[in-house]
Amino acid sequence: MAKDKKKQPRPKAETPKGFRDYFGADVTERKVMLDRIAEIYHRHGFDPLETSAVETVEALGKFLPDVDRPNAGVFAWQEEAVPGGGSGDWLALRYDLTAPLARVAAQFRNDLPMPYRRFAMGPVWRNEKPGPGRFRQFYQCDADTVGSASVAADAEICAMLANALEAVGIARGDYIVRINNRKVLNGVLETAGVAEDQSDDVLRQIDKFDKVGRDGVSALLTSGRKDESGAFIDGVGLSETQAAPILAFMTAKGDDNAATTENLRVAVGNSEIGTEGVDELTQIAAMLKVMGIDEDRVVIDPSVVRGLGYYTGPVFEAELTFEILDDKGRKRQFGSVAGGGRYDGLVERFTGQKVPATGISIGVDRLLAALRAKGLAGAETSGPVVVTVMDRDRMADYQAMAAELRAAGIRAEVYLGNPKNFGNQLKYADKRGAPVAIIQGADEAVRGVVQVKDLVLGAKIAAEASLDEWKSQPAQTEVPRNGLVAEVRRILG
Amino acid sequence: MAKDKKKQPRPKAETPKGFRDYFGADVTERKVMLDRIAEIYHRHGFDPLETSAVETVEALGKFLPDVDRPNAGVFAWQEEAVPGGGSGDWLALRYDLTAPLARVAAQFRNDLPMPYRRFAMGPVWRNEKPGPGRFRQFYQCDADTVGSASVAADAEICAMLANALEAVGIARGDYIVRINNRKVLNGVLETAGVAEDQSDDVLRQIDKFDKVGRDGVSALLTSGRKDESGAFIDGVGLSETQAAPILAFMTAKGDDNAATTENLRVAVGNSEIGTEGVDELTQIAAMLKVMGIDEDRVVIDPSVVRGLGYYTGPVFEAELTFEILDDKGRKRQFGSVAGGGRYDGLVERFTGQKVPATGISIGVDRLLAALRAKGLAGAETSGPVVVTVMDRDRMADYQAMAAELRAAGIRAEVYLGNPKNFGNQLKYADKRGAPVAIIQGADEAVRGVVQVKDLVLGAKIAAEASLDEWKSQPAQTEVPRNGLVAEVRRILG
Repeated sequence: MAKDKKKQPRPKAETPKGFRDYFGADVTERKVMLDRIAEIYHRHGFDPLETSAVETVEALGKFLPDVDRPNAGVFAWQEEAVPGGGSGDWLALRYDLTAPLARVAAQFRNDLPMPYRRFAMGPVWRNEKPGPGRFRQFYQCDADTVGSASVAADAEICAMLANALEAVGIARGDYIVRINNRKVLNGVLETAGVAEDQSDDVLRQIDKFDKVGRDGVSALLTSGRKDESGAFIDGVGLSETQAAPILAFMTAKGDDNAATTENLRVAVGNSEIGTEGVDELTQIAAMLKVMGIDEDRVVIDPSVVRGLGYYTGPVFEAELTFEILDDKGRKRQFGSVAGGGRYDGLVERFTGQKVPATGISIGVDRLLAALRAKGLAGAETSGPVVVTVMDRDRMADYQAMAAELRAAGIRAEVYLGNPKNFGNQLKYADKRGAPVAIIQGADEAVRGVVQVKDLVLGAKIAAEASLDEWKSQPAQTEVPRNGLVAEVRRILG
Repeated sequence: MAKDKKKQPRPKAETPKGFRDYFGADVTERKVMLDRIAEIYHRHGFDPLETSAVETVEALGKFLPDVDRPNAGVFAWQEEAVPGGGSGDWLALRYDLTAPLARVAAQFRNDLPMPYRRFAMGPVWRNEKPGPGRFRQFYQCDADTVGSASVAADAEICAMLANALEAVGIARGDYIVRINNRKVLNGVLETAGVAEDQSDDVLRQIDKFDKVGRDGVSALLTSGRKDESGAFIDGVGLSETQAAPILAFMTAKGDDNAATTENLRVAVGNSEIGTEGVDELTQIAAMLKVMGIDEDRVVIDPSVVRGLGYYTGPVFEAELTFEILDDKGRKRQFGSVAGGGRYDGLVERFTGQKVPATGISIGVDRLLAALRAKGLAGAETSGPVVVTVMDRDRMADYQAMAAELRAAGIRAEVYLGNPKNFGNQLKYADKRGAPVAIIQGADEAVRGVVQVKDLVLGAKIAAEASLDEWKSQPAQTEVPRNGLVAEVRRILG
C-alpha cells in the first residue's frame, strides 16, 4: 500500500489557482444573508431548486464541435467510454443557475406546476483566468418565473427584489430597483429608422451614456467624436433626426413613473412594439403601486441599459445608492448588486417551444460586501467561551463546565491542546475571539469556586502575562462553582 | 452567432447519469436538518468551513502516476497548459470532506487556532457506477477536531453527535452512539500472539460477527467452517488459545461501561497498547458521565467493528434503533447513520508531521430518510395561498391581495398562467399544495367582497367542477375585501 511512499515528493497544500476557502464568519454571514433572501422568495411562492453541479456539456449549450475540448469558459471532462459503445459524454460544472433551470424546465415540463416559480442558491464555476477578487467558483442567487407571459410576473420579481434587499438589512432609500424595457428601445429604433444590422452598434453607444453623457452619445450615434486622448471615434452614421428619439429614450426619466412613461410614449412614436413596451411599463408601475411598492424603491428608468442586448422585454437592475470608500479611500457609489429581465428562449433549445420566463440574479459576493461595508453582515463576531485546563487530570470537570454552559444556550468549548503552557491557552482564547475564559486550578477546585475572566474588558492584557498578573486583573471574578452560568450570562449581557 | 443552428440536433434535457435534482421540500427538509445540526456543532465551539469544490489531484492524494488520467473514483480534468510552461495541473472534484480538511489544516497551519474544531456540510462527488439510490453527487456533514491528542476531544465529539441526533428530532432511546477503540484490539492481538501480517485477516473475520455470531467467528479464526451453501471456508489458523481473547474482546459488552471496561482489561492481558486503549475508554466514559450523557445515549461497545481497520484510536458509530418497514414491507432496524474515529495521518502527507485528529461524519441522506420514515423531516408540507385570476384586467387587484397576505407573514402568490380556463387554475393550486384559494370575479369586486376557499376542506371537489358547482361548496366563504387576511388566518389556524 505504502510502497514508494518515500520517493514521492510531498504534495503542495494549496487550493487550485482561482479557488478559495471560506472560514467561520465568511460562511455564516453569507448563510444569514441567503437565509433571509430565501425567506422572502419563499413567501412570494417561489420554491427552492437545487440542481446537480454537473451537467452534460450538451445540455449546458457550450458544445463547440470544432475543438477537441469543449471547455471554453467551463470546467469540462469526458466520461469513460462505454464498453462496446461510443465515446463517453462530455460533462461540465454549471457556469450559472439559468442553464440548469432551462434543462429542468424541459426535463420536468410535465410534472412541474406551470407557471413555475423557483429560486436557486449555490456555487457556479467559470474556467476563466483568475484575478484579484475574481474567483473561478462563486455563489449565485437567482429567482425566476417560467411559463408566464404576464408582466405581473415582472412586477412581482421587482417587488420581491426590493423586499429581499430590505430583509437583508439595506434601508429604504439606500437602494433603488430600476426597470426598463427592450421593447421600448426596439420601438424607438423602429421609429428612428435604424436598420436591424445597426442596432447592436447603437446599443454599444447607448452603453457609454454613463461615461460620455447625452452629447457624447449623440455624437457617437451620428458623425463621431474625439475621445479624451484626442483619437477620433467613428460614429454609427445616423442622422440627427434618427438620433433624436434614441436620445429622448435615454433621457426619458421624469419626476415620476407617469411622466416617464409619457416621455417614452412620445419617443416610440407610432411603433407598435414600442407602444407595447410602454404599455407594459405602465402596467408594471400600476401593479407596484397597489402592491405598496413606492417609486423610491422600484422605478421606471430608461437609462438602465445593461442587459438590453440580452433580454427581450422588461429589464431590471438593483443599485445600492449609498457611498462607500474604495481601495484608495475615495468615496464612490456602491453600485449594482442585482440584475435581470425577461427572456423567451429558455427551453427552446431543448423542446423547440418558446416558453416565456423572467428572473433576477443577485450578486451574492457584492451584496455581502455591501452589508459588510455598512456593518450589517449580521453574523456574530464573538467566539465561544473557552474553559481553560489548569489540571490535566480534571479534564472531566472542565468538560462538565462547558456542557453546563451549552445546556444554557451559551457557545462553549474546553481547551484541547497541550495545557502545560497557560499562555498558549490565553493566546488560543484570543485567536478564537472568546468573550470569556473560565479558569479553575487545584486551589479553586478545593474551595469550590471558578475564576470567570471577561476577555473583552481585559483585552489589553498581553498574552504573555503571568498567571499571577492575570489573576490580579479587575476583569476577573471569582464565583462559586454553581454560579458559573449566571456569571457568564452577566458578562455576555 | 446562430449559424448552423438549425442543423444541430436538439440537446437532451437530462441530468448526467447518476446525478439528480432536488425540488422544494427535498431542499427544505435537508436544510432544516443541517441547520439544526450546525447549531449544535456551533454551540460546541466548532466553526464552519467551506472549502472549494475543486482541488488539485495532487492534494486529494489520488494521483496515480501509471495511468493517463488520475480519475479512478474522482471526476478529474487537466488544466490548460501554461504557455511556455509545463503541462497544466490535474484538478478534481472533492470526493469527501476529510481530504480538503487535511489540505486546509496544512495550508493554514500557522493561522488556524490549534486545536482546530471545524464542521463542514456540502456535496461531494464520486466517479462511480451509479445504481438505484446511489448517486455520484451527495451530501456529507462532518465535524472534526484537528491537533488534539486528548480523548476529551473524542468524548466531546460523541456527546455532540448524540445532541445533534436529538436536535434533528430523534428521540432519546431511538438511537445509540457506540464507542470502541482500535488500541484495545491491537492489545488483544498482541496478547493473542497474532502476527502483524495476520491482523488484516483477523479484522475481516471479526467483521462477520453480525452475520455468523460468536461461534462462527471462533471457527473462522481457527480451523475454518462450512458456510450455508456447504462450502468450506478456510480459517485464519489461530489456536483456540489465541482466538479466546479476540472472542472475549468482541463479546466484552457488560451491563454498564464499568463492567465492559473491566472485561476489556482482562481481554488485553498485559499488553501496554491494550491497557492504554482501555484507559482511554474508561476516561471517555467518565467524561461522558459528568457531561450528563447517560449510557442509553453513548456507550462503550466493543462489538463496533466498522472502521477498526482505518482508525488508530477510539472509533464511533451511531445507530438508529427503531424499526422501519423496508421495500418489501418487512420490519428491520434502521441501522447506522454516522461513524467516525481518531486518525493521525491527516496532514502528514503534506508536512511530514503527524497531527492527531478525531471526527465524525453523518450520512445526510440516510439520516434524512430516517426522519422522513418517522414523520420528523420537519419542513412544511403546505404550499402558498393561491390568488386566482377571474378578470385579467384586474391583475393589479390580485397582486395587491397577495402582497397584503405576504405582509401578514402568509406565503401567497397570484396565478400567473393564462387565466382563461378556471379549471387550470384550480389544478395549479392543487399541484402547488395550496391550502387556500382566493377568488374575486367582477360581481364580487363590485360588491367589495372576496371568496376564500378552504382547499383542504374542499379537497374532494374534482378539478373539473364548474364555477357554479365550486361556489356552492361549504368550504368556500364570502368575506368583505378588508377581511381577507383575517379569514385566511382563520383557515390556516
